[in-house]
Amino acid sequence: MPHPLRLAIAGALGRMGQQMTETVAADPRLQLVARFQRPGSVGEGLVERDEALSLADVVIDFTTPAASAELAKACAVRGGPALVIGSTGFTASELAAIAEAAKTIAIVRSGSYSLGLNMLTGLVEQAARALGPDDCDIEILEAHHRFKVDAPSGTALMLGEAAARGRGVELDNVAKRARDGLVGPRGAGEIGFAVLRGGGIVGEHIVSFLAEGETVTLSHAAGDRSMFARGAIAAALWVAGRPPGEYDMRDVLGFGGR
Amino acid sequence: MPHPLRLAIAGALGRMGQQMTETVAADPRLQLVARFQRPGSVGEGLVERDEALSLADVVIDFTTPAASAELAKACAVRGGPALVIGSTGFTASELAAIAEAAKTIAIVRSGSYSLGLNMLTGLVEQAARALGPDDCDIEILEAHHRFKVDAPSGTALMLGEAAARGRGVELDNVAKRARDGLVGPRGAGEIGFAVLRGGGIVGEHIVSFLAEGETVTLSHAAGDRSMFARGAIAAALWVAGRPPGEYDMRDVLGFGGR
Amino acid sequence: MPHPLRLAIAGALGRMGQQMTETVAADPRLQLVARFQRPGSVGEGLVERDEALSLADVVIDFTTPAASAELAKACAVRGGPALVIGSTGFTASELAAIAEAAKTIAIVRSGSYSLGLNMLTGLVEQAARALGPDDCDIEILEAHHRFKVDAPSGTALMLGEAAARGRGVELDNVAKRARDGLVGPRGAGEIGFAVLRGGGIVGEHIVSFLAEGETVTLSHAAGDRSMFARGAIAAALWVAGRPPGEYDMRDVLGFGGR
Amino acid sequence: MPHPLRLAIAGALGRMGQQMTETVAADPRLQLVARFQRPGSVGEGLVERDEALSLADVVIDFTTPAASAELAKACAVRGGPALVIGSTGFTASELAAIAEAAKTIAIVRSGSYSLGLNMLTGLVEQAARALGPDDCDIEILEAHHRFKVDAPSGTALMLGEAAARGRGVELDNVAKRARDGLVGPRGAGEIGFAVLRGGGIVGEHIVSFLAEGETVTLSHAAGDRSMFARGAIAAALWVAGRPPGEYDMRDVLGFGGR
Repeated sequence: MPHPLRLAIAGALGRMGQQMTETVAADPRLQLVARFQRPGSVGEGLVERDEALSLADVVIDFTTPAASAELAKACAVRGGPALVIGSTGFTASELAAIAEAAKTIAIVRSGSYSLGLNMLTGLVEQAARALGPDDCDIEILEAHHRFKVDAPSGTALMLGEAAARGRGVELDNVAKRARDGLVGPRGAGEIGFAVLRGGGIVGEHIVSFLAEGETVTLSHAAGDRSMFARGAIAAALWVAGRPPGEYDMRDVLGFGGR
Repeated sequence: MPHPLRLAIAGALGRMGQQMTETVAADPRLQLVARFQRPGSVGEGLVERDEALSLADVVIDFTTPAASAELAKACAVRGGPALVIGSTGFTASELAAIAEAAKTIAIVRSGSYSLGLNMLTGLVEQAARALGPDDCDIEILEAHHRFKVDAPSGTALMLGEAAARGRGVELDNVAKRARDGLVGPRGAGEIGFAVLRGGGIVGEHIVSFLAEGETVTLSHAAGDRSMFARGAIAAALWVAGRPPGEYDMRDVLGFGGR
Repeated sequence: MPHPLRLAIAGALGRMGQQMTETVAADPRLQLVARFQRPGSVGEGLVERDEALSLADVVIDFTTPAASAELAKACAVRGGPALVIGSTGFTASELAAIAEAAKTIAIVRSGSYSLGLNMLTGLVEQAARALGPDDCDIEILEAHHRFKVDAPSGTALMLGEAAARGRGVELDNVAKRARDGLVGPRGAGEIGFAVLRGGGIVGEHIVSFLAEGETVTLSHAAGDRSMFARGAIAAALWVAGRPPGEYDMRDVLGFGGR
Repeated sequence: MPHPLRLAIAGALGRMGQQMTETVAADPRLQLVARFQRPGSVGEGLVERDEALSLADVVIDFTTPAASAELAKACAVRGGPALVIGSTGFTASELAAIAEAAKTIAIVRSGSYSLGLNMLTGLVEQAARALGPDDCDIEILEAHHRFKVDAPSGTALMLGEAAARGRGVELDNVAKRARDGLVGPRGAGEIGFAVLRGGGIVGEHIVSFLAEGETVTLSHAAGDRSMFARGAIAAALWVAGRPPGEYDMRDVLGFGGR
C-alpha cells in the first residue's frame, strides 16, 4: 500500500462527497489528489473524471447506481484505480457491470460503510452460532430520535437476521417484535425486539445474549455521519493493491472467511 | 437511636422472615432480640409475641394483613415498640386499625422495601417535574427473566405513574406501551415503554429523559431478594424513637417533604 | 409568562451567541426580537443594546464578566428586562454589581446551563443524603474523547462534591481517584472515580449507588453543545415575570427548595 | 451424541461438584448416571470411580490437578469416557499425563468454563484485529464487589491481552492502567483500564472500541457461579463422541479455527 494513499472522490459535491472531502483532509494516511462530479459539472477544485482516474490509487464513489456502474467500467478499461462504492439500489444489469469490472480491478461495495455496524453484525452472527437457544436468549434493543417513523429499525432487523442466520433459523419464524400485556413466558429460541424513541439519539443498537447466570452484550452507538466516511476510508486503505475482485466490508474487517 | 438497635422479627419462619433473620444477623448495627410466629407456633429459638414486644425497640413484620393489623394494635396498647410492616393487600378496616395504632406508635408501612426502587421512583417524579415535554422525552425500559408473563412490569408502570405525576398528567393518556411497524414520529408528552425478556435477570428498570443534545438516565438493577430485607432494616433504624405516625419509604429516604 | 417570549441575545456574534440564535429560531415558544454585540459592533441584523433592551422580555447573555455586569446594571436602571447570564470568571466587584441589579430585576446566573447535568447534580446530592455509607457505595465513572488532558473531569469532581455534600463529608477526605494494583478492600464511605478516554465522546458521567443486593445508577450523556443553549432557553422561559432576585439552575429545575 | 447424555460427576462433594449436581439435575439433555469422590469417600448416592466410568459418556471433573491427571489416565486405559476438566494449577508432568491420555480419549480442559467470558475474549481479539489504532481506541472497564482487593481484575487483564494479541502488540507496552491528574491526550494504540468497586457486583467487564463517530461495546455481566456449571455442561455435550484430542472452550464455542 502506497503511503500516503492517493485518493479521488467521485460525486464530490454531494452530501457524502462533502463529508468524505472533510474527513479525508483530516487523515494523514491519505492524499486527496482529485475531486470530480458528473461530466460538465463546475465547482471549485473539481477536475475531469479521466484526470482523476489517472492520479488516484483508489476512488471513493457515493453517487448513483448508474454512475457507479459507469465508473467501474471506466476504471476497468484503464486497469485501475481500485474502487470503493457506496451507492445503493442497483439494477441487475448494473450489478453485472460491476461484477465484470471486478475481474480487472479490485472493488469494495457495501450498503453501509459503518465499520462498527458491520463488525457488530459479524460478531452477532458468530455469537448466535456459538450459543444456542438452550444456552441463552437473544434480545435486540434499539433507540432512535423522536422523528423516526418505523420500528424496529432496519438495522435492528438486520442484526436479528444475523442472529437467526447464526442459529440456522428464519427470523420471521422466531421474531417477537413487541411485548405488551399477558404475553406468557418467553419462548425458547425467540429473538425479541424492543424500541426506544426520543430526543436526538442518532442510533443505538444493543444485542443481548442472556443466560441463566451471565449476560453477554454486543452494542453499537452512532455519533454522527462521519462514521460512514471513516469506514469508506478504511475500505480504501484496505483495497489498494488487492487482486481484482468484488469485496465487501466483511472482507475489509477480516470477517469474510475468504 | 439506641445502638445497637434491638430488633424482633414477626413471621420469623416465613420466607421473608428467614431472609430478615439472615440479613439482620450480619448487621453490626442491630441486635436480634426475638423471633416469633403466630401464637402456638413452635420452632427453634422462637418466643411468644408478648415477650418479643417487651424486648424490642422495633418489630419487623412481613406476615399477613390480618396479623399485621393485630400486631399494630398490640404494640399500640403497650405504647411500643415501633413497627415496620411489609405485608400487602390490606382491607379498609385493617388499614383503619393500623392508622389508629399510629396515633400511639411510629409505624413504617410500604408495599416494597427496596431502597433503590423507592429512591428511583422519587427521583423520576422530580425529574419529570423539572423537565417538561418541551424539554425532553421520557422512555422506560425494563428487563426480566424469561419466566415473567406480563409486560411491562408492574414496577415499570409504577415508574411511569411517577413520571406522569411529575408532569401532572394521567399515565393512561400518555403511555405508549409498545412500538411495532409504521408508528410515525413520537408524540410530544408520550411516555414510552420497552420490554426485554431473557435469561435469569432479576429485574432492571431504566428511565431515560431524552433531550435533543443530552440524555439523563435513572436506573435500578435488582440483584437478589436481600434488597428488601436491607430496606426494612433501614426503615427500622430510621423509625426507632420517631414520634407516633404512619410513615412510608419516602419518609425514610427523606423524600417525603414532611 | 407572555407567549411567545420576546428574547434578545447579547454577544450575538460569539460562539454561544450563534448557537443561541440557531436554537432560539427553531423554538416556537420564543420570538427573537433583537441581537446585539458590544457597542459599535456591526453585523447583519444587529441592533443597539438599548433598543434590544426596550424590545425584550428576557436577554440571554454569554459574553464576558465585565460585559455581563455592565448589562445587568443597564437592565436594572431601566427596570427590566430579566437576564440569563452564562459568562464565567467574575471578580468580586462584578458579582456585587450583579447582586445589586438583582434587587431590581430577576437574574438567572449559572456556570453551566445543561439542564441534564444540573438535574443530575441535584439528584446525586439527594440520593447520597438518602443512602448512607452503610447502605451503599458511591462510584463515579466518566468518559471523554481522546483529546481531554485531565482526569477525572471537572464535572465528575463536581458530581463527587454533590455526593459528598449529601453525605456531609469533604470530598477530599473520601475520594479514591484511581485504583491500580493491590489496593485492598474498598473503604466504607469512599467515593471512587474511574476514567475512560477514547474516540469522540462528548462527555458521559455515570454515578452508581451500589448496595449488596441492588444498584441505582444516575447518568448523563452529552450529545452536543446545543444542550447549553436549550438550558439557557429553559431559564429564560422560567425567569420571565419572576420577582427580582438572583437565581440559579437549581431554581429553574425546582430543586432549590426556595 | 447420545440423548440424553450420560454424565458422571467427579469430586461430587466439592463446591463445584455440588453446583454441577444441581445444574445437571435441572437439564433435560442430561442423565446423571454417577457421582463419585476420591476412593474411600462415603456419601449419599456416591459410587466407586470405576463403576462411574463404566456408566458415563462424559465425566465432569472439578477436583485437584493430581486427581484430574489420574482420572485422565484411568479413562484412557478404558478407552473412555470423554472428560471435561476444570481443575487448575497443573504441574508440567500432570499436563503431560493429560496430553498423553488425550491421544486415546477426547478431553476438554479450561481454566474458566464461563461460556460468556470465553466468547467475549474471542470476540474482543477479533474486533481488535479488525479495528486498528487508527480506527478506534480500546478501553476496558471492570466492576466488582467491595471486597475485591486487586485492580484491574485478572479477567480485565486477560481481555486486555486478547485485545493486544488482536493488534499484534504486547499488553505491557500499551496498557494504561489508571488515569489521574494531568495525563495529557490519549496515546494512539493505548489500551486503557478503569475500575469500579462497590456493593455486591459479582463481576462486570466492558470492552469499548471508541471511534470518532461511533462506538462498539462488548460486555459481560456475571450473575452467579452457575455460569461455570452451565459452561461445563456445554463442553460435555460438545465433547461426547469427538475424536481423541485435547480441546478448550474456544473449540466448544467454534472459535478455535481448528
